[in-house]
Order: sequence, then structure tokens, then C-alpha cells
Amino acid sequence: MTQEFELIARYFAPLAASAPDALGLRDDVARLRPPAGENWIVTKDALTEGVHFLASDPPDLVARKLFRVNLSDIAAKGAVARHYLLALFWPRGRAVAGIGSFAAGLAMDQAEFGATLLGGDSVAIRGPFSASLTLFGACLRPEGPVTRAGARVGDLLYVTGTIGDAFLGLQIARGEADGFSRDDADYLLARYQLPLPRAAFASAIARWAKASLDISDGLLQDCGHLARESGLGAEIHAEWLPLSAAAASFVARAPDRSAALAALASGGDDYEIAFAAPREAEPSLIEAARAAGITITRIGRCVLGAGLRFIDRDGKEITSLNPGFQHF
Amino acid sequence: MTQEFELIARYFAPLAASAPDALGLRDDVARLRPPAGENWIVTKDALTEGVHFLASDPPDLVARKLFRVNLSDIAAKGAVARHYLLALFWPRGRAVAGIGSFAAGLAMDQAEFGATLLGGDSVAIRGPFSASLTLFGACLRPEGPVTRAGARVGDLLYVTGTIGDAFLGLQIARGEADGFSRDDADYLLARYQLPLPRAAFASAIARWAKASLDISDGLLQDCGHLARESGLGAEIHAEWLPLSAAAASFVARAPDRSAALAALASGGDDYEIAFAAPREAEPSLIEAARAAGITITRIGRCVLGAGLRFIDRDGKEITSLNPGFQHF
Repeated sequence: MTQEFELIARYFAPLAASAPDALGLRDDVARLRPPAGENWIVTKDALTEGVHFLASDPPDLVARKLFRVNLSDIAAKGAVARHYLLALFWPRGRAVAGIGSFAAGLAMDQAEFGATLLGGDSVAIRGPFSASLTLFGACLRPEGPVTRAGARVGDLLYVTGTIGDAFLGLQIARGEADGFSRDDADYLLARYQLPLPRAAFASAIARWAKASLDISDGLLQDCGHLARESGLGAEIHAEWLPLSAAAASFVARAPDRSAALAALASGGDDYEIAFAAPREAEPSLIEAARAAGITITRIGRCVLGAGLRFIDRDGKEITSLNPGFQHF
Repeated sequence: MTQEFELIARYFAPLAASAPDALGLRDDVARLRPPAGENWIVTKDALTEGVHFLASDPPDLVARKLFRVNLSDIAAKGAVARHYLLALFWPRGRAVAGIGSFAAGLAMDQAEFGATLLGGDSVAIRGPFSASLTLFGACLRPEGPVTRAGARVGDLLYVTGTIGDAFLGLQIARGEADGFSRDDADYLLARYQLPLPRAAFASAIARWAKASLDISDGLLQDCGHLARESGLGAEIHAEWLPLSAAAASFVARAPDRSAALAALASGGDDYEIAFAAPREAEPSLIEAARAAGITITRIGRCVLGAGLRFIDRDGKEITSLNPGFQHF
């Protein structure tokens, strides 16, 4: 038997050591004090084994995925991470040493992305390893977060990185995909297991994006949210999607090219940023992406009307799409 | 299949309707803006079926327990609730209508205790109904929260309400207790299912308590934390424990009176406030309790040294105690 406070002292207190407001994780609460002039936002995303990660994934990787899916939300709003809280549901009877691995994963990512633990809770669950994280971020734009609602007709739509890799990685993990080289399969699986949140691009989002969000439930579903909240329609060109070499090989082998592109644009877990920006910002955005060491790609534009059209190289709409990740 | 955003719109958006910073629950984040002059704290506690509540408990009761275990932390620090975030792990395949009941429970408690939903996440779990809640509160003391660390030698120890009821309620729910009248059994079970957080006493805590915490893992274990963090020892008198009539009947029937009192003082889930205050504050505390419609009871005092002594009517230490709730 291990007491919760022993776990906290051993594994979690070091993650809070540089945050005086965490009160050493020895009290019931933490203080929450945004410094004067900082405009804070908060998000809370959860993961559960067998749905968002594989039972075989090591706990440190799960911790980093949990941290990063939350960080992805913060970055997409043009903000940087500050502090976080954690709720850990650890399977009853599973070796407590795994919690040490989980904490080591958090230590790695909080050092890389600049955040400290403020508090939380850990409970023994009669079920799958699950966790939720509450992440606080500071906006880089004085007016606050870049929401989903600010796009205007004529704005161009962009996305960071590549699309569909995590979707293919999950297929590979499930043994439902073949035809990939060993290197491609390893690359795609890694993209599923560990998102690469575009934190380095948050300042560019804060400066130039009119509307922005992170892609977690599929590019098309999420861009549909952006269009609806902005009160306009969107066109996305299937042939403009940025694809990794591995994803491009999947499309090249597919019997129906449009359906393959639609599958990549509907799969979940990309954790890239989709955003709308005026045409004149494009050179600055490209320069900012280069400085951040990432790529951005123009994938479409905002139009009058409502709804999202996903169109092929002939301008014809691609229909009968997978609607994106279904939560329930 | 139900999309997460349909669930949000139907069940959760009404809980956020009066909080503009929630952005209608239609974005990835919420804004977090403590009003000027407010000193905020945050806590995050989690519950899971079969450990913290019964599989037969209706979802609205679970929601209220979740809200209240967090509120209990906030109240014990001398603060009032402001906003909260939610992570809901809903069993895959269980009827989604139960989420409506869960949201109805939150609606009831947020109205009673004055808080609004800011955001969160809901996922389908291959396991038991679980949830975590992140609650923000505003301190009623300008210097911030009343911590566990401020007690001084000579301070008296008090507790709100009665002790051990929820512990007995859990025994009854498990069919491990007998000898109670139907009315007593109903009362004790209700005390396990639905804590009564002492929010109305938070202002008195802020004003007079030197150290304070909520009792979730057993009075003795939690008072031990208070003593250790304050750098002193504590004496608690078994015969001074405030008992409900139902708990008193349990003690009266027990073959070993001291062991019965120790069991009540070691059981979990009281969600009362234990606090240390100087002797001269007692009349004011009693008056504040009367105004709040609750009782407080002096149970012991802070002494030089370290460790907690639980003593019987002859001043002899009661040993071989259950150490309190073991999390892992």
C-alpha cells in the first residue's frame, strides 16, 4: 500500500518545485496568480487507454501525449504554457513504479515547453489508465486568445505540418494498414503516439491569425467548426493537403485517390494548427514558420455562405466523407 | 453515435451561459480573468465508480458529490467558488441520457454554491464512470488561502458538523453494518452519497482560523497533516468528537468504545473542516457557526513536539489505529 502523499512527495513534488504557488503540493489547493499584464486562458483535455492511446504505450509517452494535446489547444490560441493541474486514474493493482515513468514524461515536456505543476489528484481506478490535465496559458496577444470566430470572407486557410499521419499511425498500431515500409510505419506510429504541438508558432498565430484552432478530431470537422463560428463557409482543396512521404505513399497506392485524401483529412489526432489569415500576411507567416522550424501550407479559403466544401483537382466536391472522430 | 459538440450544446452549454469567459463552450479554451482585487485558488479532485461512489448512485448525485468534494477544499481555505472545468469519463455504450442527469446535478449545485462552468472534456471510457473537476475560488482573506501550516502551540482544534457518518454510510452501502434503525441507516447513507460542504463557514475560516483543511481521508490522518505542516504536535480527545445520533448508537453498541471512536475518526469522506484557532476566537467562532446554521466542536489542541495523539477519557493514548484511507 502506498499513501497518496508518498506518491506526491516522490514523483510529483519535483515537478512543482519551482512554482511557489503550488505550496509544495502539500496543501489542498494552489494559488492562481496571473502576473499583472498577463492575459490567461485555460483548457482541460483527457485521455483514456484503449481510446486515445494504446495499452502497450509506456506511461512516460502517455504523459507527454496528455501534456501535448492540451498544449496544442493553448498554442493554437496564440498563447504559451504556464502551469498545469493533473488528475491521474491509475489502475488498481498496477505497479506504482509506472507512475514514476508517467511523472518522468511530464518532467521532460514541462522542461521543453516551460510549465510547472500546480496540483491535482490521483486515484486508483477499477479500469483503464486515464488522466486529465488542466493547462493554463498566457496569451501573446494583448486582446486575449485567437478564437475560432474571427475569420472573414477572403481570408486564406492554412495548416501547420502534415495531415493524416496520426490517423495512419493508429491504423498501423491496430494492424489495419499494410504496404508501408518499416521506416514509414515507424514514423507514422510515432506521430500517433506523440503529437508535435506547434508551440513555436504561437507568436505568429497571435500576430497574424484571425481565427485558429488545433486539429484533434479531423481537419475537415475542425475547419467546419472554424467556419461555422466565424459565420461563413470554407473551401478546402484535397490536392493542397500537406502530406508526409509516408502519407503520400498511402494516397499513391489507394484505389480511390479522393477517398484516400478524404480519409486523411477526416482522421483525428493531428494536433496541428488550422488558421485563417488575410492574404497580405502570407509572406510574414511563411517567414515565421521558417524561423520556427516548421512548415505551413495554404489549404483553402473562407467564402460567403455556410458549410465546408472539400474539393478535388477539378473543383468537384468530394462527398460521402467520414464525419471525423465520434466521441460517443 | 453522438458528437461531443452535440452533448456540449445540449447538456453543458447551459451551465456556462452566464460566464462570458467560457466562450459559449464553443472554443478550445476559456479565458481566465480573476477580477482586480480577487485572490484566486484552484483545486482538482477526481472520483471513480466503485471507489468514491456506488455503481447504483444516480449520475446527478455523483455530479453533486464531485462538485462538493472540490468545494469542500475551497471552503476549508476560506474561499468561495467562482468557476469550474470538468473532465467526464463516460462508460462506452452507457446511455448518453445519463449525462443529462449528471449535468442536472451540476446545475443544482452550481446554483446553490454560486459557480459557473468554463469548459472541459468528455471522453468515452472502456471502464467505470469517472470524472475530475477543477474548481477556482476567490479567497475571502486578502492575504490568500488559509493553509495547513499556520497553527501555533496553544491553538485549539475544532471541527465542523459531525464525524464518521460517511464512513458508516459506506459500511451500510456495502452491507457490512447492522444494528441501525431504518432512519439512521438512511441518514448515514445520505451522508456518504452527498457531502455537505461548509461553504457558509468559509468567511469565519478566513477571519479566525490559523490553519485549516477539509477532512477527506479521516480526521486523524488529516489533522496529522495539519500538525506536521505547522511544525507541531496535536492532541485529539476521542470523547470530544461530535457524533450524530446514528454514529453515537454505533459507539454505544460497540464492544470496544475506544476502537469504535478510533474507527469513526479514521474513516474517510467526512468533508467537514478541521481548523486551528486561538482560544480567544472561540466566542466569535461559535457565533459565526450559529449564523451559518452549523455546529462546530472543540476536539483538541496544538502542542509542542510532533505527531498526533488520540486520547481517551483517562488521557491514555488510543493506539493500533486504522491509518485512514489508503489511496493505492
